Amino acid sequence: MSLTPEQQQEIEQLQNNSYPTKRATVPALEEVLYQAFPVLDHGFVRVIDYMGDDSAIVQAARVSYGRGTKKVNEDQGLINYLLRHRHTTPFEMCEIKFHIKLPFFVARQWIRHRTANVNEYSGRYSILDKEFYIPTPDNVAAQSTVNHQGRGQVLEKDQAEKVIKLLQDESERAYDNYEDMLNENDKDPNQTGVARELARMSLPLNFYTQMYWKIDLHNLLHFLSLRADSHAQYEIRVYADVMIDILKRWVPFTHQAFMDYRMGGTSLSGKAMQVIKRKIKGEDVTQESSGMSPREWRELVQVLEK
Amino acid sequence: MSLTPEQQQEIEQLQNNSYPTKRATVPALEEVLYQAFPVLDHGFVRVIDYMGDDSAIVQAARVSYGRGTKKVNEDQGLINYLLRHRHTTPFEMCEIKFHIKLPFFVARQWIRHRTANVNEYSGRYSILDKEFYIPTPDNVAAQSTVNHQGRGQVLEKDQAEKVIKLLQDESERAYDNYEDMLNENDKDPNQTGVARELARMSLPLNFYTQMYWKIDLHNLLHFLSLRADSHAQYEIRVYADVMIDILKRWVPFTHQAFMDYRMGGTSLSGKAMQVIKRKIKGEDVTQESSGMSPREWRELVQVLEK
Amino acid sequence: MSLTPEQQQEIEQLQNNSYPTKRATVPALEEVLYQAFPVLDHGFVRVIDYMGDDSAIVQAARVSYGRGTKKVNEDQGLINYLLRHRHTTPFEMCEIKFHIKLPFFVARQWIRHRTANVNEYSGRYSILDKEFYIPTPDNVAAQSTVNHQGRGQVLEKDQAEKVIKLLQDESERAYDNYEDMLNENDKDPNQTGVARELARMSLPLNFYTQMYWKIDLHNLLHFLSLRADSHAQYEIRVYADVMIDILKRWVPFTHQAFMDYRMGGTSLSGKAMQVIKRKIKGEDVTQESSGMSPREWRELVQVLEK
Amino acid sequence: MSLTPEQQQEIEQLQNNSYPTKRATVPALEEVLYQAFPVLDHGFVRVIDYMGDDSAIVQAARVSYGRGTKKVNEDQGLINYLLRHRHTTPFEMCEIKFHIKLPFFVARQWIRHRTANVNEYSGRYSILDKEFYIPTPDNVAAQSTVNHQGRGQVLEKDQAEKVIKLLQDESERAYDNYEDMLNENDKDPNQTGVARELARMSLPLNFYTQMYWKIDLHNLLHFLSLRADSHAQYEIRVYADVMIDILKRWVPFTHQAFMDYRMGGTSLSGKAMQVIKRKIKGEDVTQESSGMSPREWRELVQVLEK
Repeated sequence: MSLTPEQQQEIEQLQNNSYPTKRATVPALEEVLYQAFPVLDHGFVRVIDYMGDDSAIVQAARVSYGRGTKKVNEDQGLINYLLRHRHTTPFEMCEIKFHIKLPFFVARQWIRHRTANVNEYSGRYSILDKEFYIPTPDNVAAQSTVNHQGRGQVLEKDQAEKVIKLLQDESERAYDNYEDMLNENDKDPNQTGVARELARMSLPLNFYTQMYWKIDLHNLLHFLSLRADSHAQYEIRVYADVMIDILKRWVPFTHQAFMDYRMGGTSLSGKAMQVIKRKIKGEDVTQESSGMSPREWRELVQVLEK
Repeated sequence: MSLTPEQQQEIEQLQNNSYPTKRATVPALEEVLYQAFPVLDHGFVRVIDYMGDDSAIVQAARVSYGRGTKKVNEDQGLINYLLRHRHTTPFEMCEIKFHIKLPFFVARQWIRHRTANVNEYSGRYSILDKEFYIPTPDNVAAQSTVNHQGRGQVLEKDQAEKVIKLLQDESERAYDNYEDMLNENDKDPNQTGVARELARMSLPLNFYTQMYWKIDLHNLLHFLSLRADSHAQYEIRVYADVMIDILKRWVPFTHQAFMDYRMGGTSLSGKAMQVIKRKIKGEDVTQESSGMSPREWRELVQVLEK
Repeated sequence: MSLTPEQQQEIEQLQNNSYPTKRATVPALEEVLYQAFPVLDHGFVRVIDYMGDDSAIVQAARVSYGRGTKKVNEDQGLINYLLRHRHTTPFEMCEIKFHIKLPFFVARQWIRHRTANVNEYSGRYSILDKEFYIPTPDNVAAQSTVNHQGRGQVLEKDQAEKVIKLLQDESERAYDNYEDMLNENDKDPNQTGVARELARMSLPLNFYTQMYWKIDLHNLLHFLSLRADSHAQYEIRVYADVMIDILKRWVPFTHQAFMDYRMGGTSLSGKAMQVIKRKIKGEDVTQESSGMSPREWRELVQVLEK
Repeated sequence: MSLTPEQQQEIEQLQNNSYPTKRATVPALEEVLYQAFPVLDHGFVRVIDYMGDDSAIVQAARVSYGRGTKKVNEDQGLINYLLRHRHTTPFEMCEIKFHIKLPFFVARQWIRHRTANVNEYSGRYSILDKEFYIPTPDNVAAQSTVNHQGRGQVLEKDQAEKVIKLLQDESERAYDNYEDMLNENDKDPNQTGVARELARMSLPLNFYTQMYWKIDLHNLLHFLSLRADSHAQYEIRVYADVMIDILKRWVPFTHQAFMDYRMGGTSLSGKAMQVIKRKIKGEDVTQESSGMSPREWRELVQVLEK
């Protein structure tokens, strides 16, 4: 993570704010408000603002006049119930706003989640910084042999370093070219600079961008369940992991229900449930006798062995 | 508006809250937080929570590390610019949550705005209150003779009162029937009560419901521009009017820009602009020489005479 | 269902259309295009238009230049895989448009699904027809004693008929009043008619409205999974059931995957999966030893007994 | 545009389809269905499917049983009215699906329009082609001196060619590195290939991707009004221009209304309308006497001189 001293100072100023409010407030989240949680080599996640807490979910579910709280354990029970039964609208009543710095190729996956509000740093309007993502050696891995869209075994150290050096050199050169094209301050007085919107297209997908990203709690849980999943690309998963820690500070009951029912949960087909019932009765079910395709069967076996 | 003493007390409790927060806070809005602004005979609008302020728009537009504020008048200038040029995404960075009580037929119009979060009081789960909307005599009007979907002249007082009495009697009887069908506490020991989800269908559209409604500022402006418009039905317009006052407390720069560019603004077609340019040059343009249809011409004349 | 002879004729005209097209076409759905499938006493569902078929899902998933079809059984396997793993975007590539006639209280549930396009018949613009929903005796049920928002036992025949008569009388009277208020064609020459937007509010929620409703396949599956569920109110479930039959005609592979993985499927929490694994190993798990709450335990037992 | 012979053949096969359908069909659009309209050096736009036509808009606005057509000129009048008054929901009843090939940096702008369905070619799953965008000399321009996010004067020919050569060389080298990292078929038997999801991050933003993109007509018009605007970046504007031609084939009445009211139209603030009225009366208004800021005044002068 690379904040300039000025940025660090701006953040600290905000952290020294203290205003009185009548709104629902979450001390554990206030503690880390504005703070930049580092992710990857130059990225970060910052919470900029939030609305609501666990009680706000209960309050909306009951359309109540007051705080919605009866007793704390009833609130937790209701949150569990709502999440288990996919009564999703009360979770939409909480909202959170992040400032995120991330590589272009991660931003491209991120933005596929449409039910969110976004303001991204504009490469048409401003010059992009010289910051690009280089994986650490233990993250340079081969194509997975079982998963068409994942990575498999980590490369030998010397081979990984070769890849890293190549990425490093290319990124350096790409930024040199970007600067040459922009020709800011007439560095080369014999050349006219090119428009920023054109020059930027020479930068590779590992360069960093940043954005403000605001989302409601229901859609955040959906995002996290997909992006913290083991099938998600490592470079987006590390962002999701940080955000799950933030979730725990913000809405601890919801976090707990989410970890049990969603992250730790499983969806089973009608056929799979039949197999399970037969197995519970002691029957020795095989793929052939299960009525499932080999792939479905493999997936069920995995679930039962996990 | 009819709050029970208990509801009133719950509201007052919330109004006595005071928590320290590092978040952007708007004292003018805090002042009226949780308060029920009466609308129609039993309805209200309450602000339950909010996120962001005018500066948050600027901050997001600049994807800045700090507060986003340079100087106050620059912030206002940028907000004007953004609104004028329909750069809408920074306005999505503010969010507000309302508790609204409103008749069914108003709720049905309201809910057509899809980019919002809603939790409505459930007539399957709970018994609806005996509260229904009866217009005041000066709001009982005839069908408009020029506008297929609007109302025209107010009815003579005695005719209006006839209508009001009819509505009143019908609503009373409908609620009596509703209660008979529910047969709560075995009022009639010889009859079995009907499920709430069934009994409710006997209630007319003037009965009140309530909902939590959360929306971002951009979509709120869109809602208000349509529902505070003179073509909107009176019974929803009064809600929009109250919300515009709330807007003024919350984001005063945005409110001012909204009133000038959106509420007070006009969209003109290419043809209309041609007519205007010719008129400015002193030419006497007629519908025939304008290239516009009679209807378009009539609308332009109205705009120029407004 | 009550179509006028003119409406019936308009529909038949459309059914006699035959145009050549290069687009993906589904003969089994063409067969019933425009046809009104009756639902409840006056409602219906009509398919007005559609885009895409099972192959279009495959084609989009592969971002292919041609038809996307390798072999039929590969297509089916891919659709199963996509649905099982909630890769939902390819299902968004198919679209369907319905014309639906339904009671207000059903429309109010329906419209909560926001990711759809809607045009509803306007009670401000037009006079509503004298059509209201009256349940059959075997659908007049008491409040459920176990489910706060459902219905339980059917009422005794004479009690049901009492309820039905009450609904019938009220609905008749409400429409009489509506007509009196409108005073169309100066039926009563001494009274001024009231604007349609006002008069309509006297109609109860069991009156029928109609709408055009267009939705993509992914969101349709979501709607159906919630509204064809046994916890949905009967009066919306019957619409969902008819639409599942239509789904089968339109996209048979998707329909089959939907029935197995979604309608027939189950979501289990991490705790529930632990219990199942212990049971498969022959262990006798009790609620106490399960780590689950009584409510969770009850739900799991139900799932395993289903 | 670079279609392989196989892709070309697949397209031709589709173009030879002819199925009978009862659905609304648009012969002028059928003519070009599946055809790849070239954009930039390797990009294209193809229409893959469509739903509805001009009449479908009318039909939905009237919630009619039949085709919705009274007389052709009434339909056109209604479409004009709906578009002029921003009654947008009937336009949502038409849908179109495109296959688009475009550079990453254009795709990143494109995807900001959230109300659409997207399936993009996956760089995790598949190897990206060696195709990158190089501007023609007359599109290599300097940063605009008046517009912070636009381009200004075209560069001298030799300077432009220098930029082009630099982009060309860099793109070639980037793809070589990408291939080296992938090491497909063990080209270098001493190196292990890197996972596709990692290798792709070395490619610059001018490389091409492709996607299926489906959108309703209302949201398409919104997209086109922003992206065919003179302030949009050239490289996305050329796509919008092609799509406006397609719009003309598909829904000619809507296209005409769109060109007059939206593309050729102007939004004026309340203050601007006051100035216009004074000018029409012959008054000589200046910025000082207008009550407008210098920037607003400049924009109004521009509009009146256009």
